[in-house]
Amino acid sequence: MDKVVLAFSGGLDTSVCVKLLEEKYDVEVITACVDVGQGDEEIAKAEKMAKEIGGYKHYTIDAKEEFANEYIARGIKANAEYEGYPLSTALARPLIAQKIIDIAKKEGATAIAHGCTGKGNDQFRFEAVILAMSDLDIIAPIRELNLTRTEEQAYAAEKGIKLNSDKIYSIDENIWGRSIEGDILEDPANEPPEEIYAWTASAEDALDTPQKVSIEFEEGIPVAINGEMMPLIDIIKEANKIAGENGIGRVDTIENRMIGLKSRETYEVPGAKLLIAAHQALEELVLTTDELRFAEYMSTLYADLVYRALWQEPLREDIDQAIDHMQRRVSGEVTMKLFKGSIAPLTRESPFSLHSIEQITFEDKETDQREVEGMIKYHGLQAANYQKLNR
Amino acid sequence: MDKVVLAFSGGLDTSVCVKLLEEKYDVEVITACVDVGQGDEEIAKAEKMAKEIGGYKHYTIDAKEEFANEYIARGIKANAEYEGYPLSTALARPLIAQKIIDIAKKEGATAIAHGCTGKGNDQFRFEAVILAMSDLDIIAPIRELNLTRTEEQAYAAEKGIKLNSDKIYSIDENIWGRSIEGDILEDPANEPPEEIYAWTASAEDALDTPQKVSIEFEEGIPVAINGEMMPLIDIIKEANKIAGENGIGRVDTIENRMIGLKSRETYEVPGAKLLIAAHQALEELVLTTDELRFAEYMSTLYADLVYRALWQEPLREDIDQAIDHMQRRVSGEVTMKLFKGSIAPLTRESPFSLHSIEQITFEDKETDQREVEGMIKYHGLQAANYQKLNR
Amino acid sequence: MDKVVLAFSGGLDTSVCVKLLEEKYDVEVITACVDVGQGDEEIAKAEKMAKEIGGYKHYTIDAKEEFANEYIARGIKANAEYEGYPLSTALARPLIAQKIIDIAKKEGATAIAHGCTGKGNDQFRFEAVILAMSDLDIIAPIRELNLTRTEEQAYAAEKGIKLNSDKIYSIDENIWGRSIEGDILEDPANEPPEEIYAWTASAEDALDTPQKVSIEFEEGIPVAINGEMMPLIDIIKEANKIAGENGIGRVDTIENRMIGLKSRETYEVPGAKLLIAAHQALEELVLTTDELRFAEYMSTLYADLVYRALWQEPLREDIDQAIDHMQRRVSGEVTMKLFKGSIAPLTRESPFSLHSIEQITFEDKETDQREVEGMIKYHGLQAANYQKLNR
Amino acid sequence: MDKVVLAFSGGLDTSVCVKLLEEKYDVEVITACVDVGQGDEEIAKAEKMAKEIGGYKHYTIDAKEEFANEYIARGIKANAEYEGYPLSTALARPLIAQKIIDIAKKEGATAIAHGCTGKGNDQFRFEAVILAMSDLDIIAPIRELNLTRTEEQAYAAEKGIKLNSDKIYSIDENIWGRSIEGDILEDPANEPPEEIYAWTASAEDALDTPQKVSIEFEEGIPVAINGEMMPLIDIIKEANKIAGENGIGRVDTIENRMIGLKSRETYEVPGAKLLIAAHQALEELVLTTDELRFAEYMSTLYADLVYRALWQEPLREDIDQAIDHMQRRVSGEVTMKLFKGSIAPLTRESPFSLHSIEQITFEDKETDQREVEGMIKYHGLQAANYQKLNR
Repeated sequence: MDKVVLAFSGGLDTSVCVKLLEEKYDVEVITACVDVGQGDEEIAKAEKMAKEIGGYKHYTIDAKEEFANEYIARGIKANAEYEGYPLSTALARPLIAQKIIDIAKKEGATAIAHGCTGKGNDQFRFEAVILAMSDLDIIAPIRELNLTRTEEQAYAAEKGIKLNSDKIYSIDENIWGRSIEGDILEDPANEPPEEIYAWTASAEDALDTPQKVSIEFEEGIPVAINGEMMPLIDIIKEANKIAGENGIGRVDTIENRMIGLKSRETYEVPGAKLLIAAHQALEELVLTTDELRFAEYMSTLYADLVYRALWQEPLREDIDQAIDHMQRRVSGEVTMKLFKGSIAPLTRESPFSLHSIEQITFEDKETDQREVEGMIKYHGLQAANYQKLNR
Repeated sequence: MDKVVLAFSGGLDTSVCVKLLEEKYDVEVITACVDVGQGDEEIAKAEKMAKEIGGYKHYTIDAKEEFANEYIARGIKANAEYEGYPLSTALARPLIAQKIIDIAKKEGATAIAHGCTGKGNDQFRFEAVILAMSDLDIIAPIRELNLTRTEEQAYAAEKGIKLNSDKIYSIDENIWGRSIEGDILEDPANEPPEEIYAWTASAEDALDTPQKVSIEFEEGIPVAINGEMMPLIDIIKEANKIAGENGIGRVDTIENRMIGLKSRETYEVPGAKLLIAAHQALEELVLTTDELRFAEYMSTLYADLVYRALWQEPLREDIDQAIDHMQRRVSGEVTMKLFKGSIAPLTRESPFSLHSIEQITFEDKETDQREVEGMIKYHGLQAANYQKLNR
Repeated sequence: MDKVVLAFSGGLDTSVCVKLLEEKYDVEVITACVDVGQGDEEIAKAEKMAKEIGGYKHYTIDAKEEFANEYIARGIKANAEYEGYPLSTALARPLIAQKIIDIAKKEGATAIAHGCTGKGNDQFRFEAVILAMSDLDIIAPIRELNLTRTEEQAYAAEKGIKLNSDKIYSIDENIWGRSIEGDILEDPANEPPEEIYAWTASAEDALDTPQKVSIEFEEGIPVAINGEMMPLIDIIKEANKIAGENGIGRVDTIENRMIGLKSRETYEVPGAKLLIAAHQALEELVLTTDELRFAEYMSTLYADLVYRALWQEPLREDIDQAIDHMQRRVSGEVTMKLFKGSIAPLTRESPFSLHSIEQITFEDKETDQREVEGMIKYHGLQAANYQKLNR
Repeated sequence: MDKVVLAFSGGLDTSVCVKLLEEKYDVEVITACVDVGQGDEEIAKAEKMAKEIGGYKHYTIDAKEEFANEYIARGIKANAEYEGYPLSTALARPLIAQKIIDIAKKEGATAIAHGCTGKGNDQFRFEAVILAMSDLDIIAPIRELNLTRTEEQAYAAEKGIKLNSDKIYSIDENIWGRSIEGDILEDPANEPPEEIYAWTASAEDALDTPQKVSIEFEEGIPVAINGEMMPLIDIIKEANKIAGENGIGRVDTIENRMIGLKSRETYEVPGAKLLIAAHQALEELVLTTDELRFAEYMSTLYADLVYRALWQEPLREDIDQAIDHMQRRVSGEVTMKLFKGSIAPLTRESPFSLHSIEQITFEDKETDQREVEGMIKYHGLQAANYQKLNR
């Protein structure tokens, strides 16, 4: 019997898929849960559910450090925000898909299955990776059988699958961020209710005294927080905690989905907001004007590629080369002030600083002011010619 | 004797210029102060000083409404932020220069004078307009005589010019924003002291309960605040007040000056931050993805043009045409939440909304999920081909 | 019985559709052929075929002038080239679709049908317009019944439809250009055979003496050729003739299709190449550097929008506003030299020229060369700071 | 006595500088001529002149191979064309300046001198490199003494300097291109006379039979021409010869100079046009759509940086990283057809081709055409929503 590896979370969609794959596709199902920081409870729940439903075999893969060092690190260096929020789900999908491919190869499976419906971005993100990085078949039972949520629930009941929760919202979580959508959030005329947030205090409930946080960077990557050196993954955890307590990182946006629909989305990204803001503050100090403009251009492009499931695009790699070279000088320390949801740089220092107190002030003493006259005369020459024709 | 119109503020540089023009250039000096919202006290001070020094004639021109309706309105529609802060000084300069030209023509003057030194952006901004919009000569006494600040002070004392203040910082103010630079601020390793701020409460001292503010837009321009219709200039005043009380609008940045120097600058732009944030939140609802990306590109370009003294560039007008067409649909109402320095959209509504609850949810019921399969298959086809060659 | 309007060319696909619509969809078929310059013979052939197959009613709509004045004119002003060739088919599709919609409304039809297969760009181009500009249903018989070319031919034979030709290549033609694809052309390792060309001489067979052609523009649009004022449509015909005789306008390219496939395509666009080259030569004279860079950016974007079936995108209209404003000064005369496939500007003149012999030469006499020293000193200041840190 | 190294060509400006430096600046002059392919005759002339005038010491540095391998190679990979012509002078300046710096260091000189006037681009290009790459002083005698051409000639006569020619045009030449400006060329209403061209036949006098040329690339760099492997510098020479005989490579343009003046310029760049056209044809085959768009963006930016004397900008290095990564796959062979000034690709092949005959034709047989329906439905969804609101 053919083996199939199923990307498994233990939720309704993927639980139903186990049985559907066995019944309708007649295959042996290996369930695999890739841990990118969705929380220990979630991982345990997936393991328990896998056992209960009784697939052929279950894998839990801890990919948290790889996620931090190979994906989030790139997101920080690129300031990868899509329409105003740091990408998290989209950044994790290529890694998850790759881990599933690895298992499929190891197990000699012939196909990979996922539980995505035909409505969202994630089906693109899984399948683009599988198509590019393997020759495995793809099975998408929910979409292929065109099942509605109600039909899935009925099928689950029929098969004796016990689901834990009556979730109102659709939530996705990894160490870099948390997204919440669905229900009343769909209408942008509704305010998001406080209950959707788990990582961040409301500004009202945030700490009552301003916090200063220092972040040290080496080649674009955070290496210490408040003076303490630690691995990136621990810095992210710490940043999530500190920024969350101070009410930083709630994003409420109208997002343009891959298929063109506008969708109201809410995110919690406290650590990401803190680290990217600090990173940008440092870049302002060390990159030239021309580099800053180009970095901004690349950032938008990079975020679009990642959002649109194109991690495998060679352009993504090309841009990474330019970014890596640029980031060689993004080393130094930034102090940020956090308070009640607001965040601002206080101080920034770097051995690669292009800011020169001397140049700012030497103007005063040694320079003949008249030397700039020629520059002014030529500046805007074409605009002046244009206006003269106009007059 | 030739007449010269001097752009006059009543500060050290322009006060000294009156005497220099009379003595060294042998001309009749008409002083002119263009009111773009620098504050009634400043305007009165300029008038008093003009009288004391005794130039030939003094003009005070009230250009506040024109500034709001013809310049700030364009800044809002373009979301014109330069390196992270809403442009204010740069936006007012072309109007001030134009008003001075008008006076020069009316008075039959042969030249325009300004008090800029040879170090900053403002000499470019004055002269670019004068060169483009008139055939008048330009006189820049401080720069042409290469005077230092100390030399200016000595000359002022010699001429009996009494200056009011021992200003530590160099400040520029109009209804759209306030900039503060100089002294210890020059070093980005120093935190900005609380004393530099005049329009905004610190987050700590800001109001203790969150404020909701609704802004109504018509064709990209704010027409009502909290339900009350009023002229743009009054909306700006109200926005400055509300946002300032809530600690919104302090910006601390490393800016790239026209001549390439990196300079640490601080700004207070409470109303501008509020109105632009609301404007962008509305744009997310009504503009297509392709329009949003293009608007972002134009915004950066527009801010660069204004910052670089190129208001007279025909490209500025070209971009305005595209923006005006786009903004025809940026009508509707946005509610923002302000609290302790943080600002976020709560709700947004527009008759031109491209967000459709129906389309978001109709997917669920009427659509065969399988219809998306071809799209997924082709998505990332080239990336997959690339990776296959790689493998 | 419901009425359906079928976009009709008289070729295999659309002829088969008439019968399919009657038989399988049980509707009354109105055939409509929109003349955008595919040649009088083609139009007559379509009429004859419509009569023979016996649809309910046939329309021939002459849209050639509207095509020239409302679509090609925009293409010229935008220099709309997609990956190196002037867009022609893509530019005509929105107009054709609109004309079909007009007939459908006039006739009270409930749907529009087209003969596109599920492989190309044109199905997108028809349907995007119909979806945006009407509430009519869409029927795509060949695609919906998943018919192969062989199956279509069998069905045609069965129904007694006599088709004129054994076409080797797939050809599309309108007054702005001609595209040829298919057969041995599909492989970019094959040279295109001479037989595919109809509008252009080979360089070898082109005229043996160089031709000079003068083009006069008003606001970006050609109004005279070789000194003779005529409507745009006649200028295009004349330009096609002259440029074609001189071997201008053959394009052999690897094109990226909408769904991502790379495809080898060949085009004949003699008049388009001549008029766009002249237009660009004039733009170099009258637009500022900043405008030229922005125009280039808009041009790429515009061509992408048109190619990707997004004529109805509001961004297309937004860009048109900026272009129209810019083109107000693109008036004047350009002389081009054509010879054996090469084309180059010889002379250019415009009342809006920003080129100034005086400014070029006045430098010599009146200007102190030393005035540029400050400018040089500041130019590249950040780059120098960077290199100093490097050393 | 201080030593100064003078960048020396043996023309009027630099010959006069030798004497000026000795007389007015009281320094020992070392003349240095960097050979980047200006022709053996020019180099010999410079040596002879240096001897005659009798500077302290003369260097001739052969930098031709370094120019080809380290600068032109980058120009090819970036398709570096500024406003339509391949950059040559601007590309050579940084290397020349660097070689002069090396000599100055070796000789213990305190300054570098050049003969540029205060009018052109080249003073920027020399000084930007010297400022960035050394701490040497800069002396620009002609500009500093504000000498006119007539004054220079008088001074030369007085000092007994015999100049060879009464040059009408100002010419700059290296292995990558030749620029001709001045005299009647300044007015774009004049046709360029045949006499200005030295490397290219007119189309009329070009070879009477079409030539096919094959170029083989490895990682973006030409490695063989017509099947023969040779060093890049020899390929360039061969390409100049073949393309020149076929009338390829004359460019007549209105250029925007660094200080904003529009200037009519003519270039001869036969080999550059051939190699860049072949390079682009190959890129179309192997780069993804997203890469091609990004490459085009980088190309414009790169050419602007090089033109504006910013070879030392870190952004130039950043972009090179992205380009180098992209070019890893730009390997393969292209055949071009050259005839009477026209140039076109005939065939292109590469192991990294993303063009797939299979994918183009497999559509026909195996694919259900209906799979594309969902894609069409979503394509242009926002545009349709916009138009529906419009209606």
